[in-house]
Amino acid sequence: MHTQRFYTLTGSCPDRAGIVARITGFIAEHGGWIFESNMHTDHEQQRYFLRIEIRADSIPYLLAEFRERFRPLADELGMDDWKINDSAVKKRVVLMVSKQEHCLYDLLSRWQSKELDIEIPCVISNHDTFRGLVEWHGIPFHHVPVTADNKPAAYAEVRRIYEEVRGDVMVLARYMQIIPPDMCRDYPGRIINIHHSFLPSFVGAKPYHQAHARGVKLIGATCHYVTEELDQGPIIEQDVIRIDHSDSVDDMVRYGKDIEKAVLARGLRYHLEDRVLVHGNKTVVFR
Amino acid sequence: MHTQRFYTLTGSCPDRAGIVARITGFIAEHGGWIFESNMHTDHEQQRYFLRIEIRADSIPYLLAEFRERFRPLADELGMDDWKINDSAVKKRVVLMVSKQEHCLYDLLSRWQSKELDIEIPCVISNHDTFRGLVEWHGIPFHHVPVTADNKPAAYAEVRRIYEEVRGDVMVLARYMQIIPPDMCRDYPGRIINIHHSFLPSFVGAKPYHQAHARGVKLIGATCHYVTEELDQGPIIEQDVIRIDHSDSVDDMVRYGKDIEKAVLARGLRYHLEDRVLVHGNKTVVFR
Amino acid sequence: MHTQRFYTLTGSCPDRAGIVARITGFIAEHGGWIFESNMHTDHEQQRYFLRIEIRADSIPYLLAEFRERFRPLADELGMDDWKINDSAVKKRVVLMVSKQEHCLYDLLSRWQSKELDIEIPCVISNHDTFRGLVEWHGIPFHHVPVTADNKPAAYAEVRRIYEEVRGDVMVLARYMQIIPPDMCRDYPGRIINIHHSFLPSFVGAKPYHQAHARGVKLIGATCHYVTEELDQGPIIEQDVIRIDHSDSVDDMVRYGKDIEKAVLARGLRYHLEDRVLVHGNKTVVFR
Amino acid sequence: MHTQRFYTLTGSCPDRAGIVARITGFIAEHGGWIFESNMHTDHEQQRYFLRIEIRADSIPYLLAEFRERFRPLADELGMDDWKINDSAVKKRVVLMVSKQEHCLYDLLSRWQSKELDIEIPCVISNHDTFRGLVEWHGIPFHHVPVTADNKPAAYAEVRRIYEEVRGDVMVLARYMQIIPPDMCRDYPGRIINIHHSFLPSFVGAKPYHQAHARGVKLIGATCHYVTEELDQGPIIEQDVIRIDHSDSVDDMVRYGKDIEKAVLARGLRYHLEDRVLVHGNKTVVFR
Repeated sequence: MHTQRFYTLTGSCPDRAGIVARITGFIAEHGGWIFESNMHTDHEQQRYFLRIEIRADSIPYLLAEFRERFRPLADELGMDDWKINDSAVKKRVVLMVSKQEHCLYDLLSRWQSKELDIEIPCVISNHDTFRGLVEWHGIPFHHVPVTADNKPAAYAEVRRIYEEVRGDVMVLARYMQIIPPDMCRDYPGRIINIHHSFLPSFVGAKPYHQAHARGVKLIGATCHYVTEELDQGPIIEQDVIRIDHSDSVDDMVRYGKDIEKAVLARGLRYHLEDRVLVHGNKTVVFR
Repeated sequence: MHTQRFYTLTGSCPDRAGIVARITGFIAEHGGWIFESNMHTDHEQQRYFLRIEIRADSIPYLLAEFRERFRPLADELGMDDWKINDSAVKKRVVLMVSKQEHCLYDLLSRWQSKELDIEIPCVISNHDTFRGLVEWHGIPFHHVPVTADNKPAAYAEVRRIYEEVRGDVMVLARYMQIIPPDMCRDYPGRIINIHHSFLPSFVGAKPYHQAHARGVKLIGATCHYVTEELDQGPIIEQDVIRIDHSDSVDDMVRYGKDIEKAVLARGLRYHLEDRVLVHGNKTVVFR
Repeated sequence: MHTQRFYTLTGSCPDRAGIVARITGFIAEHGGWIFESNMHTDHEQQRYFLRIEIRADSIPYLLAEFRERFRPLADELGMDDWKINDSAVKKRVVLMVSKQEHCLYDLLSRWQSKELDIEIPCVISNHDTFRGLVEWHGIPFHHVPVTADNKPAAYAEVRRIYEEVRGDVMVLARYMQIIPPDMCRDYPGRIINIHHSFLPSFVGAKPYHQAHARGVKLIGATCHYVTEELDQGPIIEQDVIRIDHSDSVDDMVRYGKDIEKAVLARGLRYHLEDRVLVHGNKTVVFR
Repeated sequence: MHTQRFYTLTGSCPDRAGIVARITGFIAEHGGWIFESNMHTDHEQQRYFLRIEIRADSIPYLLAEFRERFRPLADELGMDDWKINDSAVKKRVVLMVSKQEHCLYDLLSRWQSKELDIEIPCVISNHDTFRGLVEWHGIPFHHVPVTADNKPAAYAEVRRIYEEVRGDVMVLARYMQIIPPDMCRDYPGRIINIHHSFLPSFVGAKPYHQAHARGVKLIGATCHYVTEELDQGPIIEQDVIRIDHSDSVDDMVRYGKDIEKAVLARGLRYHLEDRVLVHGNKTVVFR
């Protein structure tokens, strides 16, 4: 980590000889100074993934022009998912919460201290529980109740708000509702969930009850992108914590909170720093 | 974990045959139903440690009388540190903070959700930074500045407040000042600190800088009771997190926060649930 | 851990008031000195579990008589699974292996150094690969090939050998065959397997391939008792290790070996020290 | 990991713009296909580190010629520690042991299965304990006793053997002697030790006793290069394991073995795969 402004180039393309040389050659020709670079070849998929941080002040063009200049090379290499982001442009993170507090407090704490250098344009919740806390922090709070009857209208409203505040990513911070399939489809790689189990174990509801019934000796949490299939999206980050026979479901819930918030925060940070590249149902995470 | 009211008996005594039988026999004679019991023999010190949870409604006496009835047995066994606490009496935890937010937010979150079932009679800080947040939670906030010149007066004021609110334990939640020796002596086992290294490595100031200079591959945090000797008190809980060569001191600080707050919360909980018995400079922690 | 001879009493019974007092009272009446004791109440099942180590030289009876004297109390309390074992009697562990070496070398190393204080009366394998290594250690080696056609005869032979050497427990140290249902039924809690995934994820064949396909960020290993249902038996111990996108299936296999052998060794030790009590499909593990 | 033959280029140089482009451009000009590449900039030291794997069959020169062609560029960039190694040339690892078996068994197991694709030209020990095991594996065993009186002669003999067998690296696999300073100086980065503590805690003798006395809640192991200052060399890898108050020094020794062998094996593998670059007293480890 360093504190200077930089541009982050990410993308993937079919593997072949000379890719790094072409791309870093392009950057060097434009005077670019590389801060950090990560490459990965998926030998099975024959696919090449990269992430490069370039000192912003080493590039004598505006970002828009730099992007245009890079485009022909990206096309030639067959990079169809490339991006160049500017570290000076804060990402806009919309938080979705229900009645559990731990991930919300945790993210507010990281935002307040600028550990997460983001904008939180608003918090959306299906309950009014945390209005006070959120508004005290100077962040708008939207109560959008979800019932068996109003789902289409409720999520239309969520989408309207998200679009209105120009959200870059939506974080389900223990939001206890299932996002409708069309919304999952329309925002691929832009909705991040924290699931309270070590996926693929214990998909769906009440994972701690499932874990207790099976008698596992570790419980986990999984941060993943939301897709149409429940708890099946690309995994960004996971972790576990040890339990034993003396731990009740309530104890598991309590221990679980600690890893849920840590895993969500790590996964979100990887996403925000453009460290996560999705390919198929898997991720490359350049830590 | 369970939710019924219980009494917790803790203590230690010289080891010999028959201790458990005597103590559990005493409890059984009084009709007591044991929920959970932990014993440990330190074979080197020849010392026996125990912690027993007894269903409150199984004892037909008030707690004060139960204690009196237990006293002769405790004396006979040579238990000089025994206590019987009532789970229905919330402990009063005074938080001490400076300008770092992560442990404060974390503890407020656990208090707000009743995960930590405590009273926080007040927060004391040498800075005014978190007055708003603390007061928004309905908790009194005391700003007691500490300078090179006013130390005796400042800590006299801290002690006055702590006594006035009848604090049971004081938690240094990344309070960046050194507690004066007399105060350490007067509150043994009642001041809990979180140190941002894996003690005994990197005692004192700037442990992450020390860790960076040494090139360690894991960094840690240690929750311990405060004693006169800086960072040398009995250790309650520790944990570590992996880093690598690419992590700067700032990265370490950031990763470190996550384990600091988790380790402090775990250590504090063990203390609050009477799971920590101190003997010499070491602890027995019945998890 | 200590080095004196002791008896280990284990068992479980319906929960009620006074159990510890009755049992430790019985021990005290017989002059017994308790080294270590662990108790656990399963509040859901209303069941009480205990494990007590008693100094052998504090009991003025032979073990057989001590057992007989304990029997009436066990009956009264409804303990139907109680045992009193003697630490001086080494358990007889029969190893079953195929062509993977890591768990075998690991267990031989622990046996050679007396870290695991056991007898290994023989090693049985469906391949002849490790005959030399095993016999060099002075341990008999039995090659019992298993094919699609000879399964009943092969496992009849395995059982014959196991009975002949009076095995106490059979350890599937990456034995790549499925134990027949009748054998699972006949030796409940006496066949220990190491499965190369964090169960219940990735049951059955090729778990690392399954893990790679799902894109998980941690892989695991599970030590469990073998039951008729494949990979569904009571879990004794589990652990995980971090991987990332750059790890191929071969890398996972390699990392996995390290946790497989560690988890198997820990689980086996818990079993050998009578620290594992099975109830239904779950375990209580008194570490 | 992949199984094709490759060349590994490693090195470091003062940081400046365009390094990657120059180096990968050079590789591309020679037809080289990059399998895997890792870069790191130490912003404090202004130093750039890299490791690149190049498919051997994509380079139309012998390795010696490829090295000569690279030399001018290395000189220009100021790389003074560069190497290009051939994955087809197995490294020659000389093991040094005393009377503890766990690391020896572990490394023999990994060598036997080709998990570690190395030559072990011989094992040297100050005791004769493991002659049988080592020779059974077909590996020469040298007993070089070390006493207070014969140190210079003993280590002259160790060096003679090491040179004679053309060792690439010497591994102190719980070799319980201190290597003389001149030998440390003469083989920088070529002697790897496993220390049984989480350095910098508990330097020197009996670290588990030290850990027990301090009452830590985790114990560790550290794999590092040996330098003249005892236990102060560059750290390659570390790990820890949880203990508690019930664990004696003997228990710690036992738990410790599990992490010692795992940490040594990981550290050694990083070294063998040219993943470790030393700079000053720290390492860059490209995992």
